[in-house]
Amino acid sequence: MNAVSQPDSVVADVLAIAAHRDDVEQTCGGTLLRMASRGLSTAILDLTQGEAGTRGSAESRAREAAEAAHLLGVGWRQALDLPDGAVENTLENRLKIVRVLRLLRPRVVILPYGRARHPDHAAVAALGYQACFLSGLAKAPAVRPTTPSAAPAVRPTTPSAAPAVRPTAPSAPTDLDEAREAEAEAPPFRPFKIVYASLYANVRPSFIVDITPFIEQRHAALMAYRSQYADQSAGGGLFVPEEEIRERTFAEARHYGLLAGVRYGEPFVQKEVGLVDDLTLVPVQSI
Amino acid sequence: MNAVSQPDSVVADVLAIAAHRDDVEQTCGGTLLRMASRGLSTAILDLTQGEAGTRGSAESRAREAAEAAHLLGVGWRQALDLPDGAVENTLENRLKIVRVLRLLRPRVVILPYGRARHPDHAAVAALGYQACFLSGLAKAPAVRPTTPSAAPAVRPTTPSAAPAVRPTAPSAPTDLDEAREAEAEAPPFRPFKIVYASLYANVRPSFIVDITPFIEQRHAALMAYRSQYADQSAGGGLFVPEEEIRERTFAEARHYGLLAGVRYGEPFVQKEVGLVDDLTLVPVQSI
Amino acid sequence: MNAVSQPDSVVADVLAIAAHRDDVEQTCGGTLLRMASRGLSTAILDLTQGEAGTRGSAESRAREAAEAAHLLGVGWRQALDLPDGAVENTLENRLKIVRVLRLLRPRVVILPYGRARHPDHAAVAALGYQACFLSGLAKAPAVRPTTPSAAPAVRPTTPSAAPAVRPTAPSAPTDLDEAREAEAEAPPFRPFKIVYASLYANVRPSFIVDITPFIEQRHAALMAYRSQYADQSAGGGLFVPEEEIRERTFAEARHYGLLAGVRYGEPFVQKEVGLVDDLTLVPVQSI
Amino acid sequence: MNAVSQPDSVVADVLAIAAHRDDVEQTCGGTLLRMASRGLSTAILDLTQGEAGTRGSAESRAREAAEAAHLLGVGWRQALDLPDGAVENTLENRLKIVRVLRLLRPRVVILPYGRARHPDHAAVAALGYQACFLSGLAKAPAVRPTTPSAAPAVRPTTPSAAPAVRPTAPSAPTDLDEAREAEAEAPPFRPFKIVYASLYANVRPSFIVDITPFIEQRHAALMAYRSQYADQSAGGGLFVPEEEIRERTFAEARHYGLLAGVRYGEPFVQKEVGLVDDLTLVPVQSI
Amino acid sequence: MNAVSQPDSVVADVLAIAAHRDDVEQTCGGTLLRMASRGLSTAILDLTQGEAGTRGSAESRAREAAEAAHLLGVGWRQALDLPDGAVENTLENRLKIVRVLRLLRPRVVILPYGRARHPDHAAVAALGYQACFLSGLAKAPAVRPTTPSAAPAVRPTTPSAAPAVRPTAPSAPTDLDEAREAEAEAPPFRPFKIVYASLYANVRPSFIVDITPFIEQRHAALMAYRSQYADQSAGGGLFVPEEEIRERTFAEARHYGLLAGVRYGEPFVQKEVGLVDDLTLVPVQSI
Amino acid sequence: MNAVSQPDSVVADVLAIAAHRDDVEQTCGGTLLRMASRGLSTAILDLTQGEAGTRGSAESRAREAAEAAHLLGVGWRQALDLPDGAVENTLENRLKIVRVLRLLRPRVVILPYGRARHPDHAAVAALGYQACFLSGLAKAPAVRPTTPSAAPAVRPTTPSAAPAVRPTAPSAPTDLDEAREAEAEAPPFRPFKIVYASLYANVRPSFIVDITPFIEQRHAALMAYRSQYADQSAGGGLFVPEEEIRERTFAEARHYGLLAGVRYGEPFVQKEVGLVDDLTLVPVQSI
Repeated sequence: MNAVSQPDSVVADVLAIAAHRDDVEQTCGGTLLRMASRGLSTAILDLTQGEAGTRGSAESRAREAAEAAHLLGVGWRQALDLPDGAVENTLENRLKIVRVLRLLRPRVVILPYGRARHPDHAAVAALGYQACFLSGLAKAPAVRPTTPSAAPAVRPTTPSAAPAVRPTAPSAPTDLDEAREAEAEAPPFRPFKIVYASLYANVRPSFIVDITPFIEQRHAALMAYRSQYADQSAGGGLFVPEEEIRERTFAEARHYGLLAGVRYGEPFVQKEVGLVDDLTLVPVQSI
Repeated sequence: MNAVSQPDSVVADVLAIAAHRDDVEQTCGGTLLRMASRGLSTAILDLTQGEAGTRGSAESRAREAAEAAHLLGVGWRQALDLPDGAVENTLENRLKIVRVLRLLRPRVVILPYGRARHPDHAAVAALGYQACFLSGLAKAPAVRPTTPSAAPAVRPTTPSAAPAVRPTAPSAPTDLDEAREAEAEAPPFRPFKIVYASLYANVRPSFIVDITPFIEQRHAALMAYRSQYADQSAGGGLFVPEEEIRERTFAEARHYGLLAGVRYGEPFVQKEVGLVDDLTLVPVQSI
Repeated sequence: MNAVSQPDSVVADVLAIAAHRDDVEQTCGGTLLRMASRGLSTAILDLTQGEAGTRGSAESRAREAAEAAHLLGVGWRQALDLPDGAVENTLENRLKIVRVLRLLRPRVVILPYGRARHPDHAAVAALGYQACFLSGLAKAPAVRPTTPSAAPAVRPTTPSAAPAVRPTAPSAPTDLDEAREAEAEAPPFRPFKIVYASLYANVRPSFIVDITPFIEQRHAALMAYRSQYADQSAGGGLFVPEEEIRERTFAEARHYGLLAGVRYGEPFVQKEVGLVDDLTLVPVQSI
Repeated sequence: MNAVSQPDSVVADVLAIAAHRDDVEQTCGGTLLRMASRGLSTAILDLTQGEAGTRGSAESRAREAAEAAHLLGVGWRQALDLPDGAVENTLENRLKIVRVLRLLRPRVVILPYGRARHPDHAAVAALGYQACFLSGLAKAPAVRPTTPSAAPAVRPTTPSAAPAVRPTAPSAPTDLDEAREAEAEAPPFRPFKIVYASLYANVRPSFIVDITPFIEQRHAALMAYRSQYADQSAGGGLFVPEEEIRERTFAEARHYGLLAGVRYGEPFVQKEVGLVDDLTLVPVQSI
Repeated sequence: MNAVSQPDSVVADVLAIAAHRDDVEQTCGGTLLRMASRGLSTAILDLTQGEAGTRGSAESRAREAAEAAHLLGVGWRQALDLPDGAVENTLENRLKIVRVLRLLRPRVVILPYGRARHPDHAAVAALGYQACFLSGLAKAPAVRPTTPSAAPAVRPTTPSAAPAVRPTAPSAPTDLDEAREAEAEAPPFRPFKIVYASLYANVRPSFIVDITPFIEQRHAALMAYRSQYADQSAGGGLFVPEEEIRERTFAEARHYGLLAGVRYGEPFVQKEVGLVDDLTLVPVQSI
Repeated sequence: MNAVSQPDSVVADVLAIAAHRDDVEQTCGGTLLRMASRGLSTAILDLTQGEAGTRGSAESRAREAAEAAHLLGVGWRQALDLPDGAVENTLENRLKIVRVLRLLRPRVVILPYGRARHPDHAAVAALGYQACFLSGLAKAPAVRPTTPSAAPAVRPTTPSAAPAVRPTAPSAPTDLDEAREAEAEAPPFRPFKIVYASLYANVRPSFIVDITPFIEQRHAALMAYRSQYADQSAGGGLFVPEEEIRERTFAEARHYGLLAGVRYGEPFVQKEVGLVDDLTLVPVQSI
């Protein structure tokens, strides 16, 4: 969970970006576990701190997110300070993500799928994609102090922006502030692959990741958000009882697994066509 | 090119089924070459004998098809006797294909894509799929002599049906007639995977096969159809000059290659979702 | 289960047409239960007798189908004699269904969705629709004895056709043969509504039917097909273990239920637009 | 209305093919009027004789069709003998249409759009397309007397087939029988363009034809079918009152006209992309 | 027309939100009339005041809107002050709508469909949806005075914002300013259902509302906008003559009515699937 | 290349708007050449100055753009000052484009297609469309100094904005600053037609423009961007070798040409339906 103390460790193979703590656990937690089990390093960037949630506080969710990250075998997790419930695709927000991309240099970025019930999820799909693009430009758009509305100034050292990024574990000795200092020499970087976790969207996935061996561990990570999922008095009418979470999430994982002939699966959309080496190795039975 | 003399040799890894001799050369010849270069055994089943073509005869096309098969490294090629220009998805025709499927037992079957300018191509997509399905039934639909129109009788030993299937090479000692005798004990079989060669359809492919190292050899195989592509007097108005064939087919291969970030490609559609082991191994750059 | 002894009783409100015994149980059995619970009369027409199945015989499946019909509260169930594995959309087959439609005069017909892995299912979608259309023509296409292939003769009294339709319960005193005699005076009839059960197709449904109170009973009806779902030696490799059936079918019902905000659901597609009386009564929460 | 007395006169610029007499009047009658007003020769081929209609007889509809053709300025109209309510896409039926195509040699063929409520309309879309393709083959599929079911024999001189094609006007001195004799020397022919009249389908059209000046004349042609549209006792429940026909058809023409910025329009779908000479001449305002 | 004097009266069953006064009259005025005739309370929120229109002033349009609201039987109508011709989906604008949603607490919100020729219409689809979402958050995004560009400050009491919302009737004693004071205690609220009026979009509707009994009254409401639709000198080239308005709008209503088998209809899209209680009660004939 | 010295000369028939200098050359340069060869006046508006490019500077790209414009026969080319890599669809940016539209008054505007790998391209599709709409409003949205974030002030005379727009040729005596003075009297204007250049999007085009006679000249115009396409040391890894540019761009032009039956083509999408005068003049062979 230590961000930059060892330069090599901060390089992530796979980075999942989502709006809210616990989004990743629901849409691609099994995939992150599978990647970790293959020896890949994984990371999570939550864009908001969950302050708009009915239950819990940003602080309690930070602790829970750290525990969930531990259960998912994720090596790096941070939260930005975008407003919960009002994530916007602005240049300022893109640049905040660019800093993380250039720090972690992931080969694969997982974003939420762009059609979603929650406006924040839809916003992250566009915001995250454009950040990935911007991150590859050697000469990124300059901040223009005289036209604040069109290109909002990025203030990398203002104290108000600093607390926006918090280490997920209180003991974490380094955070993005330190990372930011090294940013000047961080060269441009673009992930090779961007895929969209589409579990919440009733859309045909491009592919499924088999999470059968990891579904119990994924469930444990989700249950780490006790402020959200444990039975309580507050918001009882809005929240599904704890026992239903398991039943719902397993049923959806089973539905997507069946599409690909495995037990439990998580669905993803990619915009590119595939590329196949050997037709006899293409999985998923046709008939 | 010997069909059943050595039982092991007739088992194909990949079988391409098409309406007309030279269809496979145009839509998936590079893919067959690539599969052969990986040590896989490949086969081609042409459903008609090309008797409706403006140029050439069924006999000349048979010789050319054998030469093309040789150039493609294909180990088995036969032609059925469906009427050129009037391929229909009937039970009788399905059963003719079932015999080949149970003989060759391919893991992968390549069919033409179902939306096509040529009605025969569209028909083969449905006919081939249903034959693959039927081939897996232990108790295939029985021939019903009293209802000839609905379920046309299959006459496996009538002499008129026999010449319908010809060996592609005159010296081939065995043909489907012999194979047919062994058919009684041929157990049901279904290919694992069915993919659709979509080069002629302006449709988004599911995936591309990189044929860059094989494009010249694919071209040579297509040019083996001298009766079709060599400059001649007959049908001059309808046929493109020989020199244009290369330019056209390479441009299309380049177009599909660019979609996947390779030089030359052939496009395919699959109906199933994909299944991914490792996100960091998913090819084709996103951005 | 008595077909025509009491003229009034044979009129069905809802008729489900499917290719194979046990198709209806899987795709719309809960819906039939729900309709029966509302006091509506329901019926099932299986187009084949399941003779191509790996397990069981047509006879054992007939007994099981009768039991399943009883469990579903279905008042009328018959099977036609179309060939299992080779259902075709021919005029002869359409006319066989027309007889049933004019006998039962259902307001709603349920058909399988037209894109399906099993060719019989796809065929029934078109065959059933065209039968519904034909059934409404006062002057249906005449049988043309001189052009057997284009318009196959319908032989309503041939003995070979007679056994094709069997009463689902051995004690049923009347079957389609008797019904056929009354057919001459049966006036044209078209169902008001045709809907497509889309459970097997990964397609967005038009609407869901909430089957929550009926899911256990639906499961019992499916399990009535002991020849198909009980653990046995034969075909063990192909068939899913009995315990998996419940888990799979409940997960899919849950997936479709979640789309509509209910616990368990069955999905349907309709081709028409909807018509809404009162916006405040439109179900399914948007946000 | 005289089919072949003057060889030049039988060549049509535009041929509309439809299942039933009065289909063309409803879907592309205004377009035929517009084409005639430009000096083009137009023709109509009705595939059935309307014998399944609730109202009127084949004979009365033939007279009405001739009158409607006169009102539409159509130079050639014939009806084939396909069964009304059971039009099938068979080789035999395709060959019947091929004869007409080779006789009239139209540059443009209008077919009904392939998704339709009436199965005959859907069938004509595929049947007509495949006939256009077949018509261009120098060596069309031969009749195969030994395999009646797969390739039904075409009996060009059998008396039973002869009455199938009737001149629309009793006084017409020539009909398709005579045309058939000249058929031997009729060279292969393919129309340049095939478009689909999509009025009945709720589908986005590729283009609109402005029929504003012709809408009253189109209406008169439709009203020529007195057996169908005049108020009568028979079938009163099924048929819309005569006064509604005008209101309905004008409203739909207005709807499609509005899409293209004209008053009244008829919609068509083409499968090909367009080709534009001059961007400043592309019609239909964008904004 | 009195906004908040009687707390109960301000609760609306259905709220239509649109960019411009007279949008609602054109796309869902008949539906509002139908809902009112069922005893439901209806409301309209116009987001702009129409100051960019070629004809009329914001003041004249306010008077006309009040008259139209009266003709539609609408109990509450207000206009916000978003800039006509430049409606943007910003947090500030969303919060303005949230205030109205929490005040009126409608079960159903009608928005314009998201693909539209007029950019304001497209913007309202996204803006309105996100406002509905935001309105349900207990802890809505806080205003951030230090980052003006990303999260523009909401100034609930500034005088410049006050005149933005005008009562539709001059005698209305209360307006949004007073409502705003009660806002502090207004609990979070989300509409149950959001539907999209799609009349201007050439898109397949999810459902139609039958407005046959109300079409004349809807027309009268539209004609209340005399500054827009009465024949005048100004803008004569751009505006359709008054007599054409009736002809156009009735033809479109007829087109959508025909889709659902009624005389006049208004089309709507919903993003959710439907939920059906009883198959025999599903309207719109299939065949 | 002289913007406003001769009032008549600044009126353009076709205006192509794109994000980056050299976008137009790649996606619609052949079309501009074809239009010029027909005697039409053409113009290009580049929205950014290319300062984010890895190679070259804004200055060198300005010189290259002027040379390319000369080679394309374009009479007017200017670049705005939107930030390269961060083009946003804001009111301020729309108003910048409105000024150009009202100056040039083009009948046709070419925009990039809205789904694109480069976020700037996607942004220009929406930004350009909305600018075209806004340009037609007599009373465009006023600048609101008191709400800077929602409606950023337009500062038409600030010196910082002035250098943003540069004449493409150094000797050009007038630029947009002068044009801006005449803007006050510039009446509202909307282009008749907006089309989307879709070369980079793998989407079915509405139509193709045949650029066969112009493909070499288009290539020369693209090669004028020596800073981008000449072989160099900088960025060698990212850029394709010069020799590949020709091969790639010709292959894509050939692919789109083949769709329309011509040699080389450029693809475009239009949102409207087409309108056809004469069916026999509709191009592109169907079969």
